[in-house]
Amino acid sequence: MKVRILVRLKPGVLDPQGRAVHHSLEGLGFDGVEDVRIGRMIEMEVADGTSDETLDAMCQKLLANMVIEDYAIEKVGQAEHA
Amino acid sequence: MKVRILVRLKPGVLDPQGRAVHHSLEGLGFDGVEDVRIGRMIEMEVADGTSDETLDAMCQKLLANMVIEDYAIEKVGQAEHA
Repeated sequence: MKVRILVRLKPGVLDPQGRAVHHSLEGLGFDGVEDVRIGRMIEMEVADGTSDETLDAMCQKLLANMVIEDYAIEKVGQAEHA
Repeated sequence: MKVRILVRLKPGVLDPQGRAVHHSLEGLGFDGVEDVRIGRMIEMEVADGTSDETLDAMCQKLLANMVIEDYAIEKVGQAEHA
């Protein structure tokens, strides 16, 4: 089972990397960009029976820093369009 | 318009960060993980009329390193389930 975990900074947490990219886009002449936030994507191939609780535990223990980050779990190719 | 860009290493490119995470997950007792790949997620708020060509240009000029990375553009909240 393929799982995609998206880790993003919580709203309100300063994102200097996003700001730098925003600034660079403007420097390259791309107008109309209002906001840029950068996060991580973790794609994993896990055993088919892996429970949501296990995936949550992986995120909370290792993949995300729960103090400043949120995470979302997407099951790719199984319930992506559910 | 909200746009999400997913940047991932091309297949075959070594992903040491993914390997380290995989190793750590096993160390924490999570079994059944077969593969871990780590990429970037860039979420942008862009002007409504922004064309796909412009988004492609942003990716190719700045957001992705086309030598070792692929990118995918998703329009969030507009055609996410299309």
